[in-house]
Amino acid sequence: MRDQYHQQLDEVLTELERMTGIVSTAVRRSTSALLTADLGTAEEVIAADSQLDLAGEVVEEKIFDLMALQAPVAVELRMLVAALRMVADLERMGDLAAHVAKITRMRYPAAAIPVELHGLIEDMGRVAQRMVDQAGEVIKTRDVSVAQRIESTDDEMDTLRSSQFRQMMDAAWPYGVEVAVDLALLGRYYERIADHAVSMAQRIIFLVTGEMPASQ
Amino acid sequence: MRDQYHQQLDEVLTELERMTGIVSTAVRRSTSALLTADLGTAEEVIAADSQLDLAGEVVEEKIFDLMALQAPVAVELRMLVAALRMVADLERMGDLAAHVAKITRMRYPAAAIPVELHGLIEDMGRVAQRMVDQAGEVIKTRDVSVAQRIESTDDEMDTLRSSQFRQMMDAAWPYGVEVAVDLALLGRYYERIADHAVSMAQRIIFLVTGEMPASQ
Repeated sequence: MRDQYHQQLDEVLTELERMTGIVSTAVRRSTSALLTADLGTAEEVIAADSQLDLAGEVVEEKIFDLMALQAPVAVELRMLVAALRMVADLERMGDLAAHVAKITRMRYPAAAIPVELHGLIEDMGRVAQRMVDQAGEVIKTRDVSVAQRIESTDDEMDTLRSSQFRQMMDAAWPYGVEVAVDLALLGRYYERIADHAVSMAQRIIFLVTGEMPASQ
Repeated sequence: MRDQYHQQLDEVLTELERMTGIVSTAVRRSTSALLTADLGTAEEVIAADSQLDLAGEVVEEKIFDLMALQAPVAVELRMLVAALRMVADLERMGDLAAHVAKITRMRYPAAAIPVELHGLIEDMGRVAQRMVDQAGEVIKTRDVSVAQRIESTDDEMDTLRSSQFRQMMDAAWPYGVEVAVDLALLGRYYERIADHAVSMAQRIIFLVTGEMPASQ
């Protein structure tokens, strides 16, 4: 009975790792579509989000089965709730990548972001994707030190957001209001993806060790 | 045993209703502070958010106790997970109200929002607060029809967001980039508060009826 429980829990973790890979792809492709005004790719990212939600529902069902069938003890219930919250994190990260793609669609055939600002968006997309990949790596390796690394990568995101605000608030900002509004929202979406990656890392530590990290 | 379970579940619902009241106050006060550039009130809203998080942790513990001690059957476990998700919704709504207050703090002693745009922010704050209040009412009355009303109130929020974007994208927008960036983020915060109110309403329907509404 206990062996079966742990085997099913491993299956859940494998599914979560797979979802993390899907989110990583969505972040990469939505950023690429944004910078190349590629409507087709943007539409694909938006459509793929429903697939991610479906995958999430399947994992949730597995977790509910584990909760109901295997009579888990108290700490195991908390671990299963942590797994449910990771599903919610991943679904939300997928929504946010789709939001990035929707800005591409809204501005098409124009490009939302002027070439001079591509570096900033590339950096934000790259940092967000790295954090998602690190979360996947923690699930795969159960290595708590990688989870801690996610938090220092998150500091890079904060630095990028500050730099973004400084540019937009400069009196000499040459790109007008529309670009500033798009950039503010895009920055928010990438920041939220990063926040969810940090939350995931903390939940995985709990799932693996049964103890919450001190920072939460 | 069953009576005790239902009594403790009622206590959880009462706590959730109380948290909803705290969030409603935070939304009202953060909007008021924004429109009057009232740093003191903004700081109070930011400080009160930690209190809300503490209240949330206490409710979570009660829910985990119910999960572990009362050996709930499958549908009850799902209801308890729905209650946990409502705690997370409420904590997040509190964060978002604090984000509104932080914009007040960032721009102080200047006002973030020009007088001509006060009506729009008032409307967004009022609709968001009404949705939070309606969520509290559903918890209190277990009246499914009120839950459905939240979704039509959410349509008002969508209309306000569209009107906001139209104004900002107008070539004659006179308030510059800084106001546009603040307004875009504020609109996003109010919209997310509204989204969480809709999610809460759906979860309460499930908690009360044991069935998910068709829209989810």
